[in-house]
Amino acid sequence: MNRVPLVQKVLKENDRIAGELRERFAEHKILCLNLVSSPGAGKTSLLERTLEAFAPSIRVAVLTGDIQTDNDAVRLARFGFPVKQITTGGTCHLEARMIENAIADWRLEDFDLLLVENVGNLVCPSSYDLGEAAKIVVLSVTEGEDKPLKYPSMFFRSELLVLNKIDLLPYVPFKLEKAREFARRVHPGIEIIELSSLTGEGLPQWQQWIESRLRSHREALAAK
Amino acid sequence: MNRVPLVQKVLKENDRIAGELRERFAEHKILCLNLVSSPGAGKTSLLERTLEAFAPSIRVAVLTGDIQTDNDAVRLARFGFPVKQITTGGTCHLEARMIENAIADWRLEDFDLLLVENVGNLVCPSSYDLGEAAKIVVLSVTEGEDKPLKYPSMFFRSELLVLNKIDLLPYVPFKLEKAREFARRVHPGIEIIELSSLTGEGLPQWQQWIESRLRSHREALAAK
Repeated sequence: MNRVPLVQKVLKENDRIAGELRERFAEHKILCLNLVSSPGAGKTSLLERTLEAFAPSIRVAVLTGDIQTDNDAVRLARFGFPVKQITTGGTCHLEARMIENAIADWRLEDFDLLLVENVGNLVCPSSYDLGEAAKIVVLSVTEGEDKPLKYPSMFFRSELLVLNKIDLLPYVPFKLEKAREFARRVHPGIEIIELSSLTGEGLPQWQQWIESRLRSHREALAAK
Repeated sequence: MNRVPLVQKVLKENDRIAGELRERFAEHKILCLNLVSSPGAGKTSLLERTLEAFAPSIRVAVLTGDIQTDNDAVRLARFGFPVKQITTGGTCHLEARMIENAIADWRLEDFDLLLVENVGNLVCPSSYDLGEAAKIVVLSVTEGEDKPLKYPSMFFRSELLVLNKIDLLPYVPFKLEKAREFARRVHPGIEIIELSSLTGEGLPQWQQWIESRLRSHREALAAK
């Protein structure tokens, strides 16, 4: 079974397309963020609260990936921004080619920010570059503090860790300090925001993080 | 990119080894159960409570899979049963070959029950037969009711759904009735147990389910 060379070939091809996407995003000054997490960590709810709060001056588009169903696209389309569901039909992660196909009929000049919600999976999406400026990993406090140690690749490759569902902290055996320590052991420079989509705690910091990334992304592109 | 034939070849080879494992388990009258779930759905805690409660007359062995760390094996070894960690080093699921290697130095005649805790991933482990008698999918109520629809393969291939962490029901927007309906839409015959490892609710039903499977497994083998 000669699997490694094939996996490498697939990843190389993915990286090539991701590189092209990154160039196209740069050309149109689009910040692309790739949200990854376990199933049910709260990515879609976080995106609902995010879209709800955006100033209309920020032109957002959303791609949301799932194995099956277009539930998430239906939930996210309510906010009036362009949303597309990518149904992978069994594939456990999004690939650059799927992004390329999904945006094929969009005018990229119409957008400032592209939010990609990956398939719920803490393993495989870490290997697939989608041309994003940054990966953001969402970890619910119901999942246990040890996840950064058990799934290090995802936390190592993410710039920001959103510790989600902190409203449940009184009811679960989860120590924030331990989770932060484990995340930083795997990735010392990772930024961390604690948040609850239910109560709204932490949402202003999250919104500020995106807006500050939007500004710095544009400045970096302008300086080129 | 000619991926489909390779994936089929890998799965075919896996099925071959899984078939051999199944024969060996039958020969030694071992019931093998394969526990699957998202990361953090509570498989290890459930196994802790399970091992704690087993009558010494049931001879159990445990294999626990993770990308990295042997935390789970350390947690599970406390109960005095043989436990082995399978560290996949990046692979997002257990494969039959890993089980074969892990049990190579065990005397199978010493066991009645082999509990396999798969890597936390609601997608890929559904495709890999490990020679088990049944897959059991654990879904935490914090993950949302829609997971059976979004990850149908896993629920379709599992005989039992453990709806876990029901102690958190008062604090999360999760409707048990809806979760049951969605699971049965994907897999009409799936059995369902509602459970909390924290409060112990549902644990007797879970324990009875395993014991009844042990009995019927032996009867089926004896009738052959």
